[in-house]
Amino acid sequence: MASVPETMTAIEISTPGGPEVLKPKTMPTPKPAAGQILVKVAAAGVNRPDLMQRAGLYPPPPGHSPLPGLEIAGEVAAVGPGVTRWKLGDKVCALVNGGGYAQYCLAEEPIALPIPAGLDMVQAGAVPETFFTVWNNVFERGRLTAGEWFLVHGGTSGIGTTAIQLAKAFGARVIATAGSPEKCKACLEIGADRAINYKTEDFVAAARDATGGKGVDVTLDMVGGDYTERNIGRIVQIAVLGGAEVKINIARVMMKRVTLTGSTLRPRTREAKAGFARALEAKVWPLLASGKVRVVMDSTFPLPKAADAHRRLESGQHVGKVVLVV
Amino acid sequence: MASVPETMTAIEISTPGGPEVLKPKTMPTPKPAAGQILVKVAAAGVNRPDLMQRAGLYPPPPGHSPLPGLEIAGEVAAVGPGVTRWKLGDKVCALVNGGGYAQYCLAEEPIALPIPAGLDMVQAGAVPETFFTVWNNVFERGRLTAGEWFLVHGGTSGIGTTAIQLAKAFGARVIATAGSPEKCKACLEIGADRAINYKTEDFVAAARDATGGKGVDVTLDMVGGDYTERNIGRIVQIAVLGGAEVKINIARVMMKRVTLTGSTLRPRTREAKAGFARALEAKVWPLLASGKVRVVMDSTFPLPKAADAHRRLESGQHVGKVVLVV
Repeated sequence: MASVPETMTAIEISTPGGPEVLKPKTMPTPKPAAGQILVKVAAAGVNRPDLMQRAGLYPPPPGHSPLPGLEIAGEVAAVGPGVTRWKLGDKVCALVNGGGYAQYCLAEEPIALPIPAGLDMVQAGAVPETFFTVWNNVFERGRLTAGEWFLVHGGTSGIGTTAIQLAKAFGARVIATAGSPEKCKACLEIGADRAINYKTEDFVAAARDATGGKGVDVTLDMVGGDYTERNIGRIVQIAVLGGAEVKINIARVMMKRVTLTGSTLRPRTREAKAGFARALEAKVWPLLASGKVRVVMDSTFPLPKAADAHRRLESGQHVGKVVLVV
Repeated sequence: MASVPETMTAIEISTPGGPEVLKPKTMPTPKPAAGQILVKVAAAGVNRPDLMQRAGLYPPPPGHSPLPGLEIAGEVAAVGPGVTRWKLGDKVCALVNGGGYAQYCLAEEPIALPIPAGLDMVQAGAVPETFFTVWNNVFERGRLTAGEWFLVHGGTSGIGTTAIQLAKAFGARVIATAGSPEKCKACLEIGADRAINYKTEDFVAAARDATGGKGVDVTLDMVGGDYTERNIGRIVQIAVLGGAEVKINIARVMMKRVTLTGSTLRPRTREAKAGFARALEAKVWPLLASGKVRVVMDSTFPLPKAADAHRRLESGQHVGKVVLVV
């Protein structure tokens, strides 16, 4: 294994703005502190929070790298003091505190996971952000259980394709919304029991019909705005693409016994993320290894073309994950 | 035991309006259907939903009595077909589907409970509505557990005095809000660890201080309005005295991992209410029998003075329960 170079190429946000502000830059290779590993990045997933951070709307939490990139796959290139689980050359994927768009990236020992059997580096780099998010929000926060009805908005997004498959794998019945007949078809192919084209159907009525009038038990929503008042069941909010300021009628919350909750992954503690990692390794990694749950890939871009990867995600044309190959 | 008379006196809502519309009326004594018992009412609790129903704002669910009164204590005077648990003369208290303000009232077999040991009829008639509500919302819906911080608004209401005591009995730490120094003192005497006068203190800051900056884990709220955006933790809404239409920032829900939920007791199914009854009998009746949890009484009124009982509740001057004695 080659020694770690003093400098590396990373993509920086040169100034808040459009995709064009993402620029390759040579900078010092980071050094792992106690409990950290340095990963030679092979693939880095692109996620919607990266777009918001690039636009200046989602500043990294204190202590996090200012570089974009929340998930990586690669080989361990150095280990910090006290690290026992990983050794040089181990193949890992990890949820990281920024800095994924780079040749090298730091990861916390317990928030790195072995690459699921059968997955290549690109697929593995597409896993952490959506799987941590879906696991934590749908199964822990939303407490989705077998036999329940699950509704996910944005069924063809990275979150959507992951949520559809995991919900099905754990025995739920799944309704997905999407914005075109092609995307609805993709949702069904991925495993949804019912896909609703929100541009031509009222998702509230369609979901009620699909559930025989009962309504859904858990809703995963990244829209907010006027969706909030229309969602039902245990609603878990993970983004607010349609607006954060919403009006709700709490009498309706009471009458329908709605639960509205949500979370953001990035500011969670190392311990919380380590807990999600342990649960995923125990309960979800076997599903990836067996092929029961797949990584739905949209496209890959070379690291220097990070701007094009952002344009792809912003186009809304993607189905599944967009990944940078380093 | 005397036979059941053909007619009885009940209080009817002669027309939607103020307390004066509550009028005694002679009407046929109801007859128990299968699975029901007829109770000779000794005491009937007065609750805020009764006030709303009287004002025409809270129509009874289909199949419920149009008469006011959601909780009673008394003796079983007749049993319907198939009833096995109760026999004539048994002393019971019950959550009922309206009709409590009367000499006789129907109750469902599994939603009646034995009078907790040591309680008199008046105390027993003050138990069901608040205990069913607090149990279901705070412990089942809100999942309050020992060691957690619990905030209840309106600490001197029937709900408040019950919630403070039950939360303490199950090991939580309790903060109550109330609107005067006297009421704050009452909250502390009932068992709250901290009482906040919401007229002179910001409850958000005071609750943060009381919890050492951590914030509360579960909030029981009957206000809504501008409280909703300020509440934190797992918020359980049981009324909307401050307004049902509220504006919230769902990004804040996500960032603080708030959970907003709630329920109304009256429209729940017989089976759901029977489930609450079983849990109460197993887990809370022993606490009432041992005196660890007490019924906090404000005042009693004779049945024909139901209007005065409503005035008392509307004055907001009460501490604890208002009960009609039949």
